[in-house]
Amino acid sequence: MNSCSNSRITGCQFTLFPMSDDFIDLILSTLNEVDTSSVWKKTDDVSTCIRGKMVQVFDVTKAIFLHAAKSGEHIAMTGTFSIGCPGDSDADAYMNAPDEPVNMKNCLPISQLAGCKIAIYPLGNKQYMDAIYNQIDLAKSKGIEVSPDHYATRLDGDVKDIFHAMHDAFNNVQQEVSHVTMTFTISANSPSTKRVDTHG
Amino acid sequence: MNSCSNSRITGCQFTLFPMSDDFIDLILSTLNEVDTSSVWKKTDDVSTCIRGKMVQVFDVTKAIFLHAAKSGEHIAMTGTFSIGCPGDSDADAYMNAPDEPVNMKNCLPISQLAGCKIAIYPLGNKQYMDAIYNQIDLAKSKGIEVSPDHYATRLDGDVKDIFHAMHDAFNNVQQEVSHVTMTFTISANSPSTKRVDTHG
Repeated sequence: MNSCSNSRITGCQFTLFPMSDDFIDLILSTLNEVDTSSVWKKTDDVSTCIRGKMVQVFDVTKAIFLHAAKSGEHIAMTGTFSIGCPGDSDADAYMNAPDEPVNMKNCLPISQLAGCKIAIYPLGNKQYMDAIYNQIDLAKSKGIEVSPDHYATRLDGDVKDIFHAMHDAFNNVQQEVSHVTMTFTISANSPSTKRVDTHG
Repeated sequence: MNSCSNSRITGCQFTLFPMSDDFIDLILSTLNEVDTSSVWKKTDDVSTCIRGKMVQVFDVTKAIFLHAAKSGEHIAMTGTFSIGCPGDSDADAYMNAPDEPVNMKNCLPISQLAGCKIAIYPLGNKQYMDAIYNQIDLAKSKGIEVSPDHYATRLDGDVKDIFHAMHDAFNNVQQEVSHVTMTFTISANSPSTKRVDTHG
């Protein structure tokens, strides 16, 4: 098993959901503001797939959500991060991208609260539940509120902190288990933000 | 391992996304038309969790998507079906519900095309890739178009056929592997329906 995150292709299938009549303009203007040159990218009518270095995949997904959410509209995003699938190919990834997240600067001025539910799936490993419980414990130290839910762990806090915790959890587990996926659903500016409002 | 689907709690964490200013009314009117009495249900600002018999969990998710999509608005839904999590409790589920899907009648008149991406994760099992490949083959015989994608399998066709194929795949795998999750993202009435339109 090669656990070096720089040499293994990380990917994410995700969809951005603006709950607005202007969803097309919102998606297009968001993509205009986010630098996606660091990842391979393919979009169809259901979702977008990006592939590349782990640091860039988390940077691009975070930047897309942040730039969409700053519109003030109710925005959600769901997706699955994946690494090490035995059926995967070496193609369709930009592994020569830089090691610095390319959207760090344009994300810096944006402050945004959100609620997020994640689930980590270490595959092909009998001790997979230990890896899951360890990550739930770790997330508690990242400045975000962590609460259990059926089939998921809920993270509440700043969007950048939430993506940081997701990145850390995913990276930690893939160092122990070759094939890992992590699902997420993140939501901002919901009219029913009773949970997120407790941070305001 | 108890693989009888009637005695094991199936759950789904899902979110409905109407890409419309009227997203609140659309969600509320959809919930008015769908019978959710057969499942335990909890909703917060990120997602809804339902739990109960497998047949009722697939019936309710299908009915919610169908009734929302018939509005003609661009509607998407994502979620994760789950069964057999070792950390799960016996609570929060209606296992005395009937065996007949309670929304079959109100779904009958609705015909709706959609595109859907699914991924099945059999957990804690070294032969998990075989289970995944077998289900991709099976889906091809259900009257829907099946195509591979990075990290997912794409299903195109009628919404009822898509949910039927998802239900079958999930049920088949959980008879072999105790803990199984299956993610899905389904989309209808997208302005960029080039793939779905080939069925029209």
